[in-house]
Amino acid sequence: MAQKPSIPKGTRDFSPAEMGRRNYIFDTIRQVFKLHGYRPIETPAMENLSTLMGKYGEEGDKLLFRILNSGEYLRGVDHSLVENEDYPRLTSKICEKGLRYDLTVPFARFVVQHRNELQFPFKRYQIQPVWRADRPQKGRYREFYQCDADVVGSDSLLNEIELLQMIDEVFRRLGINITIKLNNRKVLAGIAELIGEPDKLIDITVAIDKIDKIGIDNVNSELRERGLSDEAVNRLQPILQISGTVKERLETLRKLLEENPTGTKGVEELTTVINGVEAIGLDAELDLDVSLARGLNYYTGTIIEVKARDVAIGSITGGGRYDNLTGIFGMPGISGVGISFGADRIYDVLNTLNLYPDETQTGTRIMFVNFGHSESIASLKMIKDLRSAGISAEIYPEPAKMKKQMGYADALHIPFVAIIGENEMKNGTVTLKDMTTGEQQQLTVDSLIEAIGK
Amino acid sequence: MAQKPSIPKGTRDFSPAEMGRRNYIFDTIRQVFKLHGYRPIETPAMENLSTLMGKYGEEGDKLLFRILNSGEYLRGVDHSLVENEDYPRLTSKICEKGLRYDLTVPFARFVVQHRNELQFPFKRYQIQPVWRADRPQKGRYREFYQCDADVVGSDSLLNEIELLQMIDEVFRRLGINITIKLNNRKVLAGIAELIGEPDKLIDITVAIDKIDKIGIDNVNSELRERGLSDEAVNRLQPILQISGTVKERLETLRKLLEENPTGTKGVEELTTVINGVEAIGLDAELDLDVSLARGLNYYTGTIIEVKARDVAIGSITGGGRYDNLTGIFGMPGISGVGISFGADRIYDVLNTLNLYPDETQTGTRIMFVNFGHSESIASLKMIKDLRSAGISAEIYPEPAKMKKQMGYADALHIPFVAIIGENEMKNGTVTLKDMTTGEQQQLTVDSLIEAIGK
Repeated sequence: MAQKPSIPKGTRDFSPAEMGRRNYIFDTIRQVFKLHGYRPIETPAMENLSTLMGKYGEEGDKLLFRILNSGEYLRGVDHSLVENEDYPRLTSKICEKGLRYDLTVPFARFVVQHRNELQFPFKRYQIQPVWRADRPQKGRYREFYQCDADVVGSDSLLNEIELLQMIDEVFRRLGINITIKLNNRKVLAGIAELIGEPDKLIDITVAIDKIDKIGIDNVNSELRERGLSDEAVNRLQPILQISGTVKERLETLRKLLEENPTGTKGVEELTTVINGVEAIGLDAELDLDVSLARGLNYYTGTIIEVKARDVAIGSITGGGRYDNLTGIFGMPGISGVGISFGADRIYDVLNTLNLYPDETQTGTRIMFVNFGHSESIASLKMIKDLRSAGISAEIYPEPAKMKKQMGYADALHIPFVAIIGENEMKNGTVTLKDMTTGEQQQLTVDSLIEAIGK
Repeated sequence: MAQKPSIPKGTRDFSPAEMGRRNYIFDTIRQVFKLHGYRPIETPAMENLSTLMGKYGEEGDKLLFRILNSGEYLRGVDHSLVENEDYPRLTSKICEKGLRYDLTVPFARFVVQHRNELQFPFKRYQIQPVWRADRPQKGRYREFYQCDADVVGSDSLLNEIELLQMIDEVFRRLGINITIKLNNRKVLAGIAELIGEPDKLIDITVAIDKIDKIGIDNVNSELRERGLSDEAVNRLQPILQISGTVKERLETLRKLLEENPTGTKGVEELTTVINGVEAIGLDAELDLDVSLARGLNYYTGTIIEVKARDVAIGSITGGGRYDNLTGIFGMPGISGVGISFGADRIYDVLNTLNLYPDETQTGTRIMFVNFGHSESIASLKMIKDLRSAGISAEIYPEPAKMKKQMGYADALHIPFVAIIGENEMKNGTVTLKDMTTGEQQQLTVDSLIEAIGK
């Protein structure tokens, strides 16, 4: 038993100090969700594998954590599956459940399962951990939290406008300068149709996405390698060279796509969303980015991505509109739009910029020194009054040496120490020591509450 | 895909209404933990099976949910383990990780793993789900939350006193009348020694526990069946017949056990704890119950159990003192004491007594009716001011029929509805409708904020 215990790779323990910082992020996000009329739900950590499989592509299926069936899980299982090491079939026999991989598929399952109890449009938020059997690396964990807000059952662009306001408000409260990048799947589809390559949507966006890194010439070569005709590449040039303000770029796109109905619809949607948020007012910088192509497997309209302006890190929030989330569970025609805050990356950004308010690290506000049993009972009586006034207070549990007790208060950053010794017991007072200034004063309970506030 | 999706048996989805009630419980407990200087930690859902196995008895090992190793989990596994269906050995080869079964063992692992970073005494709380492959039944789930507070590294009885105050305060805030039952393992051990049957501690307590149900004569028969001598049974009689107030029973116990050092120590500890909490003041009823024998596998001193007085339900909170929690991980000699609130049973008690405050069901405070695009942008501007004032507000996202929009507000128990139509846009006002009284009035933004408060 001499070996120090450990936790599975890619997982983390959170200390009280880390919890203070993490809860600051979660609480901020939660408050903004609530202010915008989103309501919380929670789903189980375990879902049936039939719910999860096939929803995240072949790669995703491999990254699901599977729960071994309880009891005699081999009963009725053909042993030849073992001899042949036929993993897909064997695994499906011995595991029926898996840990959730994201909050989107469980949400879709929830909506379909509870469709008759829900009021549509249904605005929900969900803050829970998810698990992925990914190779752990810096900033990538096997257990991490997602903070999602989605509205389903409404295709109004007001939802997009509100979600962008929520993003703006969360990062304003956290003090992080951001750029919100917008795109629209219909614009991308329109471009692909316009240049006569409707099936090459993904290839085109992958190539466009590299323009800042490798330059236009290399992007064009790559497009040809991916099978685009010279003519298609030529017709794409005005889009690759698009420039100017957001409004100017929107106008250029509008003209380029004006004969393509899909693209025109996309430009109209972008225009409505951008004009809407600008009319209401936004702190964040807005950017129109035709190379933005996250979630192309399922997004059908607006695409959103958020970057921190002052820290070099990937996307810290993302989202978009999907038109068939619940179709996979047999309930077609429900349009929805949602965003997901990346808590772990936001945590890293706040750490890098040192933006945590002091309150995230405060626990106990005042510690009473322990001079023995009768003094400590007298202290506990006074502590009860402090707690009733909302002040976190504790007594050092042992009558240890003064130095040890003060060291404890110091290590825990407790700002005040109180002393009830023989004298104080006699005259019903308390001696208060301010740990920052070192000042001491003798007080009554009421003036103590006054002095240290909350 | 026509089949309605479902979730694994024994697990639950939580709707917004249920989340409101659950968060009320968790927030109440969390606030009380904080006021008493306890600090939060979190540990991963998955632990190494080497951490979990053997800590909950043979039965507990069977109830662990195991995670199938990723990738080619059969590589290097002797196929004869499969042919022979040698579950224990096969399972240990194909699964390295399991879901946590409680919060106590992960806490012990945490303390040992981070011993050099922690300040002792270490007071932590932890509110997280746990998983058990138990047979699901009414009130018993495979995924449920535990809310634990423990202090390790101090054997002072002040910790017990504070934990009892915390129990008292949580249930006072929740409005649940409780009885806190106390016992002490040393008293039980003293009794067993006194009657000359020190090895029959468990048999004796199991039998004593039935006295209310089956009567003294049947208890005595059972004790003889369990191998106690007639003399031992005779010597036990004064303890079985113990009666009177808590103080009287303490005094009877003290006299009965005065020649037994272990028992005397136990009575002294109980006396200190009971006198301590009574000196500070307690709302709950205190009871001394020598038949209380929960957690005898690991509790070494104080034993605590809480029952609701107005609802017939099992224990809603429990706890006790343990002297060797971290010994299993190679760090002996750390004494601790802790309590665990049973959130699911507390939820049932609050439901039965209908004790939830109205606020648990309120989400959005005001909904704006949608009359079309320009009205809705005007509404969103006003809504921004409301949110800045801390008021949850939303706009119905579609310009649907009035009846549909009002039906949504009604179904979600939104207390106020606001209307910005042509007139209101012109003169910069808003029409406010109180959904309870049906009253309407025309207001400015400032007076609107004033009118609906938070």
